[in-house]
Amino acid sequence: MTEADFLAALRALPLHPGALGLRDDAARLGRLVLTSDTLVEGVHYLASDPAGDVAWKLVATNLSDLAAKGAVPVGVMLNYPLRPAPSSTATTTPANAGAQSCAADGEGQRPTSNASASGPRPSPGSAEDWDTAFLAGLAEALATFAAPILGGDTVSLPPHAPRVISLTALGDSAHAPTRSGAQAGDALWVTGTIGDAGAGLAIAQGQPGPADLLAAYRRPQPQLAAGQALARQVHAMMDVSDGLLIDAQRMAAASGLAVAIDLARVPLSEAYRNHAGDTRTARLAAATAGDDYQLLFALPPDDTPAAPATRIGVFASGVGLTLHDAGAPLPLPAALGYQHAG
Amino acid sequence: MTEADFLAALRALPLHPGALGLRDDAARLGRLVLTSDTLVEGVHYLASDPAGDVAWKLVATNLSDLAAKGAVPVGVMLNYPLRPAPSSTATTTPANAGAQSCAADGEGQRPTSNASASGPRPSPGSAEDWDTAFLAGLAEALATFAAPILGGDTVSLPPHAPRVISLTALGDSAHAPTRSGAQAGDALWVTGTIGDAGAGLAIAQGQPGPADLLAAYRRPQPQLAAGQALARQVHAMMDVSDGLLIDAQRMAAASGLAVAIDLARVPLSEAYRNHAGDTRTARLAAATAGDDYQLLFALPPDDTPAAPATRIGVFASGVGLTLHDAGAPLPLPAALGYQHAG
Repeated sequence: MTEADFLAALRALPLHPGALGLRDDAARLGRLVLTSDTLVEGVHYLASDPAGDVAWKLVATNLSDLAAKGAVPVGVMLNYPLRPAPSSTATTTPANAGAQSCAADGEGQRPTSNASASGPRPSPGSAEDWDTAFLAGLAEALATFAAPILGGDTVSLPPHAPRVISLTALGDSAHAPTRSGAQAGDALWVTGTIGDAGAGLAIAQGQPGPADLLAAYRRPQPQLAAGQALARQVHAMMDVSDGLLIDAQRMAAASGLAVAIDLARVPLSEAYRNHAGDTRTARLAAATAGDDYQLLFALPPDDTPAAPATRIGVFASGVGLTLHDAGAPLPLPAALGYQHAG
Repeated sequence: MTEADFLAALRALPLHPGALGLRDDAARLGRLVLTSDTLVEGVHYLASDPAGDVAWKLVATNLSDLAAKGAVPVGVMLNYPLRPAPSSTATTTPANAGAQSCAADGEGQRPTSNASASGPRPSPGSAEDWDTAFLAGLAEALATFAAPILGGDTVSLPPHAPRVISLTALGDSAHAPTRSGAQAGDALWVTGTIGDAGAGLAIAQGQPGPADLLAAYRRPQPQLAAGQALARQVHAMMDVSDGLLIDAQRMAAASGLAVAIDLARVPLSEAYRNHAGDTRTARLAAATAGDDYQLLFALPPDDTPAAPATRIGVFASGVGLTLHDAGAPLPLPAALGYQHAG
């Protein structure tokens, strides 16, 4: 079953009114805003990503959904799987080649530390090291964003199973905007810069590049303060997680409108321009890469946003996304961003 | 890292006051009660368990935690992993024997339906069938217990990865008891009957036995109405999930007390007695088996509970659990219930 099919089936079940038809990134219960994200090893993060960065990203992606609702974090629930240490009989013979490929994460290719004395102490790269580093990154992220732990569940995984880690974040917001409230004539704005994390992903995968772009991918910063400042004035707001173009298209579709974006206005960082250049190709790559965790919002045309942001487009009656480069029409790229499986 | 070590590390992070030190089954945010449980394929359920029953159990175990807080369900968040259909090149040659064992669930031994025409339609036993049956069981459970969907996340798993499914349940309770409020002299009570689900687990694993015991294991009934009726009068309450004896010991420890249980008073169903007998061995098996999802509570000695229940013991100053059989002291069994890994 595809994600789209599963979601359609879920929508046919009894939904809480605060679920907003499962068409938003967060649910509402009075002032309370709730969001949940799951990271799967080998799918949402690379097994080679440092565990502390995985924890950070799990917290940051959830809090980014709260930021889009103008919420102050209240707390998080963590569902964490502990993987047993591989048994000491594990080898790299063909006999368990299949088992290694199961992990779908390349861990099987990691050199075994046969040099260390076998014993109860975890060897470097062990599951215990991973858990410890995860906890350290979690502590950093929770302290940085003032989000205490409320609860959760800790479970054991079978050996070799990829980790599946969930976090549910709760926030408090007096004025939680949806993604569906944009009005014809509203301007489209985005906070921060776009494309840094996309370039950082390529760097994490082995491409040479600067550390600050890698950090943008591994340690995204949820725009909580901007979200809180903007929540009262925007007509619609969401975070940019799958790509600027696809997310803008989603906001327009949810609002029953068309949106036109000026690629020349998409804000790029100096680091990105130094790394990827400022060509149309580089701008399109930035606008479709995802993982930015900036805030995208709709504002009446004469309003000034209460947080630093760049005006990149305009909503109009109609349907769909159009793209231009300082006025010159551009065909849409084949992929507008990250499309979820199915 | 063991679950105990991980939990200790989590307790060293910033905790919300409503987390109750991560020493309870649910967190509190004002009137709101929050709990989360994760089920891992091959760990918390058998791969041969019907998917609809897995969904039911996931809902029921979470709502049982709400019941122990006297809460009315408000809604649930579901974190669900979609597993891709095994590729058509999968075979049962030794080449992927390791991959099969990774699933840790025996699915590799399932006969491949080579007879069916290969095509886009899912074959019986496919991942899609599993998802469909899960959704049907979810729909039944949510309708039965009036718990609508609030949100969640749907993700893709790598092939062969065991499913890891999380549910977070929210409830509303004006008077949520903890497990730590029992007082010396309080009587210990339990709702319903004990041991049915433990016998049902053995039946699910292949032992012969009646369908109603199997149903007690596969379709546990959270005691929501009883919990709501009892919440105002109890000194302490929790659900029996890991075993009557171990959970009673935990309530006593959390309350800083000793507890004595009369094995002769532990309520057994007629189905259980017909199946397992009414010997001391059968009673000890029932009291240590777990998965009962009944409510265990402490009440002043002269109070009558507001919901049907059986008085099985008494709290006293001191430490630890003692067991007797209608007055005759009994040594404690080696295992008081299900001990989480670590």
